[in-house]
Amino acid sequence: MTNPTHSQGSSTPSSSRLILDDLRDQIDAVDKQLVDLLAQRLRVVQQITEIKQRHDLPTFHPAREENLISARRVQATQAGLDPDYVEDLFRTVLRHSRVGQLDTLGRRGVRPGAKVLVVGGRGQMGRFFTKWFRESDYDVRVMDRDDWPQVRTLTQDIELCMLAVPIDLTADVAACIAPQLPPNCVLTDITSLKEKPLAAMLHSHHGPVVGLHPLFGPTTTTMDKQIVVVSPGRHADQCQWLLDQFTVWGNVLVETPAAEHDQVMGIVQALRHFATFAFGQFLHSRGVPILRTLELSSPIYRLELAMVGRLFAQDPALYAEIVFATPERQALLKDFIQSFQQNLDLVQRGDKAEFIARFRKIAEWFGPFSEQAMRESTFLVDKLVHRF
Amino acid sequence: MTNPTHSQGSSTPSSSRLILDDLRDQIDAVDKQLVDLLAQRLRVVQQITEIKQRHDLPTFHPAREENLISARRVQATQAGLDPDYVEDLFRTVLRHSRVGQLDTLGRRGVRPGAKVLVVGGRGQMGRFFTKWFRESDYDVRVMDRDDWPQVRTLTQDIELCMLAVPIDLTADVAACIAPQLPPNCVLTDITSLKEKPLAAMLHSHHGPVVGLHPLFGPTTTTMDKQIVVVSPGRHADQCQWLLDQFTVWGNVLVETPAAEHDQVMGIVQALRHFATFAFGQFLHSRGVPILRTLELSSPIYRLELAMVGRLFAQDPALYAEIVFATPERQALLKDFIQSFQQNLDLVQRGDKAEFIARFRKIAEWFGPFSEQAMRESTFLVDKLVHRF
Repeated sequence: MTNPTHSQGSSTPSSSRLILDDLRDQIDAVDKQLVDLLAQRLRVVQQITEIKQRHDLPTFHPAREENLISARRVQATQAGLDPDYVEDLFRTVLRHSRVGQLDTLGRRGVRPGAKVLVVGGRGQMGRFFTKWFRESDYDVRVMDRDDWPQVRTLTQDIELCMLAVPIDLTADVAACIAPQLPPNCVLTDITSLKEKPLAAMLHSHHGPVVGLHPLFGPTTTTMDKQIVVVSPGRHADQCQWLLDQFTVWGNVLVETPAAEHDQVMGIVQALRHFATFAFGQFLHSRGVPILRTLELSSPIYRLELAMVGRLFAQDPALYAEIVFATPERQALLKDFIQSFQQNLDLVQRGDKAEFIARFRKIAEWFGPFSEQAMRESTFLVDKLVHRF
Repeated sequence: MTNPTHSQGSSTPSSSRLILDDLRDQIDAVDKQLVDLLAQRLRVVQQITEIKQRHDLPTFHPAREENLISARRVQATQAGLDPDYVEDLFRTVLRHSRVGQLDTLGRRGVRPGAKVLVVGGRGQMGRFFTKWFRESDYDVRVMDRDDWPQVRTLTQDIELCMLAVPIDLTADVAACIAPQLPPNCVLTDITSLKEKPLAAMLHSHHGPVVGLHPLFGPTTTTMDKQIVVVSPGRHADQCQWLLDQFTVWGNVLVETPAAEHDQVMGIVQALRHFATFAFGQFLHSRGVPILRTLELSSPIYRLELAMVGRLFAQDPALYAEIVFATPERQALLKDFIQSFQQNLDLVQRGDKAEFIARFRKIAEWFGPFSEQAMRESTFLVDKLVHRF
């Protein structure tokens, strides 16, 4: 970067330098007070948390959060501050406060002491849920492939059996374990497909059944606002306590029929992940100099490339399972590549007019979502620019 | 969402409610003081800006910003606060302060009064730069396709001629206007290709020439940290004031030879935009219910879909120009689709093992970037979750 301050130096009298130094000291004093106030705020929040814990009160008050933000926006405007800027800061403060409270309050067990069996409990997601149930005072037992001889002891008096095994084993494991389950035991799975696993569980077990798909991985450290898709099976009332437990942990539950779930996930997971994989593979095969492209890029490309890079920081087996899951997904990928080829033909014909026409039609179809996407991604790009 | 607070109600004595109300009042008082301090901070920053403006001092002090962050991190740790949380807040505060100062200081002209001609000045980017030059006290003239009869008057005594015309017209326009330019006038273009436009400008004009590619669109409201690629042409010393002007505005300049620029942009712009277009087109052709997929998705998909949606909120002609630019780009897209097809074959053979092997190899190639990408995108997803 060049230095455009061609005329400074001698033109700044030392008195101005002193004033500047004094003003910077004032800034430092203000910033110090800001941190003191944040610490004071945290102490009050901790007192609130203790009371909530003692009286079993819920963590969230969405309405209170919105009122608080509104009040600070009004105050900001009156003080000559940009209200969006102040809202941005307070959203960070509230989020931090919420996650902090969840750390304490969100560990509460809805049915503490209840016996829970996690099948596949030594896998990544199995270990993840074992930890969460244990921290909420459940009596958790873990079963893995070598533990079948102990199945009777492990299933004795359990109130929940969670299948955390690979998708292609779910049906078999459900069939094998179901005869051992107490009649009122809740049977659930956490695979990323819902139709077949749910049908298999309903077929094998005659008690309460519910299909779950947690939309997060085993490295997640807070459940705050993490989504869990719930596909109802049988005896919803007897499954309710399990769903309540997720809510206490901070999860957001979205109820969806199994068939609709699987269809949407074909797009959201299989197609998206495959397209990202293929893009990364192409960059690799061409030996594209990643870091150099980042230097020469707008922040939005940095964000897009981060999406590609992040895929490859994760477990390949998990992605293979998602992409290879069903023949429908393979057909979807095939359709996608055909549609891709048709768009390429258009480029090779040099048909700009048709490209623009298609673009407009798609833009219309996306409707207000494009504007919203623009707003959200611009907000994030802004965060990226000032953070990294 | 269900309500898991099964045992609250009667178990909360009214004394606890009163304590809770009192604690919430304390929070409100702290928050009010926080906003007061932010307003106080802004007033001090405004005084600093005035002094900087009077003495022509630079806006940024990267070292001071980092010292400030370090001091607040230390204080945060001592006060029992998470230093990352405090740093996050102060990065927002500093960014806001920087952009605010740029609004005043960044309008300063490096060569105020100099005559500047923007050719294509009624297009989107032309209007954008006309506005920025005018606000920095340049004497800006605008020329568009109907103004050729006035070309002599318009080019008289100009010190800068900026071509803001579509890529495929740049060479012709350069050839037509060059004979009219004063010998020491800087000739520049702002197209997204650099090799051919730069060659054309060098061929036509014998004075100073520099190729620019601003990596941002006409809707950008601040130049803060926005990247401009600079491909040197001729007489760099005589072009320097123009580059200094970008630096004053807040831009970051990255110098790159034209050939390397075009190669990298093939990947960064043409391929990426085309892949995004093709994905959007596929969603449209299948009638995928966008909003429903968002409800059933992890925040990372929301972010990915925002990238797709945002493309379609923009000008199709601009994207057509980028994708259709050169035969090399068409060849690149063809290679990409072939590589995509090969990966699909692997899925259709059901060859999970090979998928995983390729995945591992690519992950290794991405190296530390994947981890960084994971960190950055997780940071952003967090922002997305607590904001929208």
